[in-house]
Amino acid sequence: MRISARNQIKGNVVEVTKGATTSHIRVDIGDGTIVTSSITNEAVDDLGIRAGGKVTVVIKASDVMIAVD
Amino acid sequence: MRISARNQIKGNVVEVTKGATTSHIRVDIGDGTIVTSSITNEAVDDLGIRAGGKVTVVIKASDVMIAVD
Amino acid sequence: MRISARNQIKGNVVEVTKGATTSHIRVDIGDGTIVTSSITNEAVDDLGIRAGGKVTVVIKASDVMIAVD
Amino acid sequence: MRISARNQIKGNVVEVTKGATTSHIRVDIGDGTIVTSSITNEAVDDLGIRAGGKVTVVIKASDVMIAVD
Amino acid sequence: MRISARNQIKGNVVEVTKGATTSHIRVDIGDGTIVTSSITNEAVDDLGIRAGGKVTVVIKASDVMIAVD
Amino acid sequence: MRISARNQIKGNVVEVTKGATTSHIRVDIGDGTIVTSSITNEAVDDLGIRAGGKVTVVIKASDVMIAVD
Repeated sequence: MRISARNQIKGNVVEVTKGATTSHIRVDIGDGTIVTSSITNEAVDDLGIRAGGKVTVVIKASDVMIAVD
Repeated sequence: MRISARNQIKGNVVEVTKGATTSHIRVDIGDGTIVTSSITNEAVDDLGIRAGGKVTVVIKASDVMIAVD
Repeated sequence: MRISARNQIKGNVVEVTKGATTSHIRVDIGDGTIVTSSITNEAVDDLGIRAGGKVTVVIKASDVMIAVD
Repeated sequence: MRISARNQIKGNVVEVTKGATTSHIRVDIGDGTIVTSSITNEAVDDLGIRAGGKVTVVIKASDVMIAVD
Repeated sequence: MRISARNQIKGNVVEVTKGATTSHIRVDIGDGTIVTSSITNEAVDDLGIRAGGKVTVVIKASDVMIAVD
Repeated sequence: MRISARNQIKGNVVEVTKGATTSHIRVDIGDGTIVTSSITNEAVDDLGIRAGGKVTVVIKASDVMIAVD
């Protein structure tokens, strides 16, 4: 499956924190740059996401803001 | 200003493409990894975003999806 | 590729309307129910999206609101 | 009230799962097609959303991604 | 229709700027506080949104970030 | 830091409700108009958000819908 979201970056899961219905996933996308994702517990279980696993973080272009100093 | 969005990654703007009301910005966040952002033309002008400039891409954790092969 | 987004519904593209940087895609997900998507022109070209094509609409659970009469 | 969000699809609630602050709602929009929504517990209580109830799922066009095989 | 989105604030449209497929709407929600909205041209036409009109801006709680100095 | 998000409104935090991984923040943006935000607990701790504090609510234009009666 290929998807319209413009940002697809490979990385390694470093931590999975489960809440009541929502989990927070921390992914190292290289050089120690960490991306944090908040997804449903159901997705974590369904996709077998766990620390150490290889994943792709997927982000729509319209969800990326730009800041300047 | 510090913001609640969990993902804030520094990078260099490599391209700005302006549409009628919306611009697409491509940012190199290191090692050639490109993040694409879609923001208003007004924001591009207001923040002085241009190719070659230094910026921070900002993304909420709930806007980051996870995919597996 | 499997993705964390909880909603993935198959359908047929009925219309593609291209703007300056953004396209609107109308997808029939069955029984004439139409879902409208707004994605980048780049994604339309990259994925070869065109009227008559088979696609899957993908939506995060946190992007689905509920209304009552 | 009419709203700018382009996608408004009627359905029946089949399940409500409450977390600490967020609930997951599963809605049958016809022919067994299920849409999952993640909303605040406050909204669930305020709108009286419960299994068996009739609702409309509401989704912005810019939140609908397109995938192809 | 009542909707799960937690933020619903009444205001007056002060400006509508149409692009190729997307419009930007500026709404005064009181005391000169302006909220800018980016919606499809189709929604603008369908709802009859025009400068001077009374509207409600609707925002999901998960789309509201918090910043501190 | 200045950010591309078009909506940045100052206010006072009136309530912080922590869930398992997600918090709900209620902010008075003037004249008793309340904006509700859903952010990670980590952000609440990191930014020191608490009832009585001064904050800015930040919302992208593409996350603002428009409704009419």
